[in-house]
Amino acid sequence: MNRNLLRLAPLCTEASRCLSLSAASAIKVTPPQLSQRFSKKSKHRRSDLLRVMATPEIEAQLEPYRAAVKEYGDKIRALKEQGAAKAEIAPLVVELKARKKRLEDKELELAPVDAGFQRDRLEDLLKRRFFYDQSFAIYGGVTGLYDFGPMGCSMKKNMLDLWRRHFVREEKMLEVECTALTPEPVLKASGHVERFADWMVKDVVKGDCHRADHLIKDFCEKQLQDAKTPEDVRTGLTDVLARLEGFDNHDMQAVIEKYNIKSPTTGNDLTEPVAFNMMFATQIGPTGDMKAFLRPETAQGIFVNFKRLLEFNQGKLPFAAAQIGSGFRNEISPRQGLIRVREFTMCEIEHFVDPEEKSYPKFSKVKDVELMLFSACNQMDGKGATKMSVGAAVEAGIIDNETLGYFMARTHLYLMRVGIDPAKLRFRQHLSNEMAHYAKDCWDAECLTSYGWIECVGHADRSCYDLLQHEAATKVKLAAEKKLTEPRLVTIVEAMANKAALGKAHKADAKKIYAALEQLTSEQVEELEKGTADGGAYALAVEGFEKPVELTDALVTVRRAEKKVHVEEVVPSVIEPSFGIGRVMYAVLEHSFRQREGDENRSFLALKPAVAPIECALLPISSNAALEPIVARVEEELMENEISYRLDNSSGSIGRRYARTDEIGVPFGITVDFESAEEPQTVTLRHAETMKQIRLKITELADLIQKLSNEKMTWAEAQEKYPAFETKEADS
Amino acid sequence: MNRNLLRLAPLCTEASRCLSLSAASAIKVTPPQLSQRFSKKSKHRRSDLLRVMATPEIEAQLEPYRAAVKEYGDKIRALKEQGAAKAEIAPLVVELKARKKRLEDKELELAPVDAGFQRDRLEDLLKRRFFYDQSFAIYGGVTGLYDFGPMGCSMKKNMLDLWRRHFVREEKMLEVECTALTPEPVLKASGHVERFADWMVKDVVKGDCHRADHLIKDFCEKQLQDAKTPEDVRTGLTDVLARLEGFDNHDMQAVIEKYNIKSPTTGNDLTEPVAFNMMFATQIGPTGDMKAFLRPETAQGIFVNFKRLLEFNQGKLPFAAAQIGSGFRNEISPRQGLIRVREFTMCEIEHFVDPEEKSYPKFSKVKDVELMLFSACNQMDGKGATKMSVGAAVEAGIIDNETLGYFMARTHLYLMRVGIDPAKLRFRQHLSNEMAHYAKDCWDAECLTSYGWIECVGHADRSCYDLLQHEAATKVKLAAEKKLTEPRLVTIVEAMANKAALGKAHKADAKKIYAALEQLTSEQVEELEKGTADGGAYALAVEGFEKPVELTDALVTVRRAEKKVHVEEVVPSVIEPSFGIGRVMYAVLEHSFRQREGDENRSFLALKPAVAPIECALLPISSNAALEPIVARVEEELMENEISYRLDNSSGSIGRRYARTDEIGVPFGITVDFESAEEPQTVTLRHAETMKQIRLKITELADLIQKLSNEKMTWAEAQEKYPAFETKEADS
Repeated sequence: MNRNLLRLAPLCTEASRCLSLSAASAIKVTPPQLSQRFSKKSKHRRSDLLRVMATPEIEAQLEPYRAAVKEYGDKIRALKEQGAAKAEIAPLVVELKARKKRLEDKELELAPVDAGFQRDRLEDLLKRRFFYDQSFAIYGGVTGLYDFGPMGCSMKKNMLDLWRRHFVREEKMLEVECTALTPEPVLKASGHVERFADWMVKDVVKGDCHRADHLIKDFCEKQLQDAKTPEDVRTGLTDVLARLEGFDNHDMQAVIEKYNIKSPTTGNDLTEPVAFNMMFATQIGPTGDMKAFLRPETAQGIFVNFKRLLEFNQGKLPFAAAQIGSGFRNEISPRQGLIRVREFTMCEIEHFVDPEEKSYPKFSKVKDVELMLFSACNQMDGKGATKMSVGAAVEAGIIDNETLGYFMARTHLYLMRVGIDPAKLRFRQHLSNEMAHYAKDCWDAECLTSYGWIECVGHADRSCYDLLQHEAATKVKLAAEKKLTEPRLVTIVEAMANKAALGKAHKADAKKIYAALEQLTSEQVEELEKGTADGGAYALAVEGFEKPVELTDALVTVRRAEKKVHVEEVVPSVIEPSFGIGRVMYAVLEHSFRQREGDENRSFLALKPAVAPIECALLPISSNAALEPIVARVEEELMENEISYRLDNSSGSIGRRYARTDEIGVPFGITVDFESAEEPQTVTLRHAETMKQIRLKITELADLIQKLSNEKMTWAEAQEKYPAFETKEADS
Repeated sequence: MNRNLLRLAPLCTEASRCLSLSAASAIKVTPPQLSQRFSKKSKHRRSDLLRVMATPEIEAQLEPYRAAVKEYGDKIRALKEQGAAKAEIAPLVVELKARKKRLEDKELELAPVDAGFQRDRLEDLLKRRFFYDQSFAIYGGVTGLYDFGPMGCSMKKNMLDLWRRHFVREEKMLEVECTALTPEPVLKASGHVERFADWMVKDVVKGDCHRADHLIKDFCEKQLQDAKTPEDVRTGLTDVLARLEGFDNHDMQAVIEKYNIKSPTTGNDLTEPVAFNMMFATQIGPTGDMKAFLRPETAQGIFVNFKRLLEFNQGKLPFAAAQIGSGFRNEISPRQGLIRVREFTMCEIEHFVDPEEKSYPKFSKVKDVELMLFSACNQMDGKGATKMSVGAAVEAGIIDNETLGYFMARTHLYLMRVGIDPAKLRFRQHLSNEMAHYAKDCWDAECLTSYGWIECVGHADRSCYDLLQHEAATKVKLAAEKKLTEPRLVTIVEAMANKAALGKAHKADAKKIYAALEQLTSEQVEELEKGTADGGAYALAVEGFEKPVELTDALVTVRRAEKKVHVEEVVPSVIEPSFGIGRVMYAVLEHSFRQREGDENRSFLALKPAVAPIECALLPISSNAALEPIVARVEEELMENEISYRLDNSSGSIGRRYARTDEIGVPFGITVDFESAEEPQTVTLRHAETMKQIRLKITELADLIQKLSNEKMTWAEAQEKYPAFETKEADS
């Protein structure tokens, strides 16, 4: 631990200044017209992987780009230290991001091509063996909707089961299942109705819609590919691409006008960018007066149940609730397969915690877990990600608190369990202008795929924003009580109605006025006190009344009293790990896709046994009837122990049949051969990834496969325990 | 088996006639304006349970009602045998149903009240301990939407896991996961856009909506409760109630006019009943030209993937696909808690099978399973349900085929595993007028609850309807190939274009005409042959053309050829078990709700270990520090073995703490007491339902609990194996 800390110390000298930049109180660069909670930027380049592979020659070429980033990082930090105004800093941040983008593009350009991966071959496999495919294909298909076939469905189920065991069971979280249908007021309070939108332009003649940033990006890239584009135009286009992520509607409109961008499909003029809300709208009930949406995230279902969950937890903080369920986002023009879809499975955790006590009791269990951290600091310095233990990162203040760090480490461990390649995983911290104003610290677990760096899991300390929003909208108190270490004396200020006078003046309305007085906050009571002083009046808003009620000191008296309180109210902070399970699954599939050395037509998926769609294949070496009773015995053994298997007793060669099961990621193959009949009956077990085999008794088989699937034994351990079996896999 | 068959023979003498009534080819009583697939009638009365309990006195009172039903059952059968016209039979069926309803009402009236069950107490428990509760309650709540809390969520998850093991894994079904968002054309083809509707009336002033049948029912019941309602009006109202289920919009409008029914909330006039489609509508994408719905059932997702699934199954029939997922129905005014909701989880199986071969290889494994069958015959005879083995029922032709019978038996076994009371379960066969015209045989598994008999699982032989509908809509062939036992010679009739002449006559259009000719069926080609004979012409419809093309024998020739075919195309029949998991769960909760003898305030849920939300409670008998290391050791043991538990180390008496865990259905309680410390360390294990305890070593604990949860051992067996532990449960 300390070793890491020492080694990494030079990187962290400016940690405090970078962090202050990314804290909630820090600058907000652009007015958050499209709030950052709702920003969906997730595609980053493969800079870090390269960092590992970078040669001195590559580093020399990157050096000026790194320096250019750092120049602006330093400028911004200096201004921040001088307490400069936000407006002064904002343009520098825009330039910083443009320079970061240029660095990443350069890294990508210099990266050696990943020769082992061809996306079209993986996609062909996934479609052909029905992991997943476009929905409603026989009706022409719908973009952004995918159906999972038997293999994908089983793999996803295994990933979700593992998620439940890894998070819900391990932390004793309260799992809930809320509806996808959500009435409008809930999503107004959460901010989605106003801000969950993308900028869209429309073909003025045909009405076809395009996502404005995608349209501009495609235009710029196409022009840059055209050799005839003059150098000065090139510079401008490159600059647009670098800044595009931070553009608002006006910026985009300016670009569209400047380059005279038309519809790519028709050549027609385009409208100005308009905000398109990405929620699917519907109506609940027949009257048409209850507007509703399909939830864009599962989190809100947890927030609106906070009171019940707190009660379930006997009123105590901290506790975490979790939910697995569908989210829906009406993307304007989805591309990129499972990465950007309109209906998807999310796994979200909302950990409710006292804002003043974010330590985590089990933190010591994970403190040595090493994460690849791409901190805000590193990003501003033009550096890559740095490997660091989560303990050291929290101690150095790079990760804001133990609870956030704990969940990041647990996410890392989960991603390892499902089969993410550790060399293709990083945690990227949000810069301050990427976060919503209320967020304290955010880290995305990003996986490197052929689409670039993809955000798969978000980790956000969202402070108490969500609960306060729902409390404001519903007037239902969403807070926990915290016992004070010693009782505290507080002064209570109350507005007491002069009931006789008020009753006489307002008759039947008096009761409502009493109720309104009781609702006043201390500040409001003090205002009332000032207002009614010296014969003045105070205008009291009363629910259901058209006009405020004028109150004088004859009708109301302000009273102060001392009171001993033993508890205080705490609106908990929320720390939210949020998983896009489809994205994780896609990254696992890319990271598991392999080709056999020397035979590139023989591709396979090296899936972890815990997530593989089928646990094992069962293959009699020939169709000889003598093997049948042994096969039946093995089948019974597997069924009895609820081990999933696929029997392939077709006539192909054993090698060809193995290739078929390897392709769909079946990790183990049981072969029944002519030796099997000898007492005690035995079979061979083959590990698909290494093609190595061992021989064991049928009675030992189920137990071993269960251990391998449940991660209680590794293949290497199995090889030590059982004798090896040598054979040549005939291919025909 | 044979014994059952003999004993039941007298009931079945008319089986063939009753079945012919309920076969697809039989009479259709009313024009299916609201198709029967979409009918949601599910509430039947508790006639069967009573049958078991009926005394001779009760039977004597019921006799005339039974005879009245049988009178019409016999009349209908007689007419059917004479080949009477549908129109002649229809009114008799309406009367039959009215008489059935009167019989059931009488049975209900005579039923002894189930003293052990109070729904309000169960509901209080489910809400208080957060099994489930109304969604968005802090926003005022939405009727028909429920959120599952930690207890409900866990119980439901366990039920779904068990469902997967019991059905998907056992039968090697192909599980899929399709989207809830469904484009309109898919649901047009399935019939939902046109027919998935309820009749609704609107308040002409306020616009409030009421489901017409509910409104009429409430009105009639209220009038009947009023002592001042004269006897002749009473008779009319009772008759309306009896016939209501079969009413169409005109019938309901007639009743509303006759009794001058007004809005129950405002007293205003009501509109005529209009059909309200119960699907939630939305739009996919930003243009607004892709109308879509949330799926009302998961089945369609399987049908549209039929081709891929057949390929996955190497082109072979039979196979079954399964899906677990959300369904959405925009009920007009949902009531009855979890029974009628707007968003719910379904588990559906579509078993695709050669229509000529519906035997089931594993049928012999279930043939002795006894089901309580309420056949169409029994219903027409005014009889109750009959206990019968599924083997005998298929043999006697009461259940149409082995596959359907197999799934019914498997459903029965599943319902037993999750905790349905066998005395409160029956399989009710649909009468012919309850089935869609294409359905061959339908049986609903109904559970008796305080809401009456509730349909929880449907079992339908839907013939090849769904696949043909989607094939017609998409022109994509949805059929399997079946190898003929020997090749067959068939005559092929083709319309051959005279290309030179046709090309000259139609120029650029000729190609489209060739294509249209290729699409003609044999029948159409023969029509063309007739049409073009003797210098005549045939009008050929061509896609994209405004008018048909006139063809003469100069332009087209009909050719006949013999061809040897080795396979034939088979459009599979679909046998569909369809589970409403929320309904099953609610029935399980009602059937498991108990009160301790002698202490009716102490209620508990006697849930099966396999579905209980938490597997065990862990209770140190006192807060003495000496017990802490033992508690920690037990916790570790449980965590290690992934056994869910709830630690209650609060200060209440052990009896009171047990009562708290009993209430939420925790089946086992581990007590750490002062004997526990003695080597080898032991604990006691208490069975919540019986309150009996045994004593065992900590090292044996995890294995025993796993066996009890996985149904590998019963509590009675555990009691035999381990010594009993006697104690008195102090209550305070």
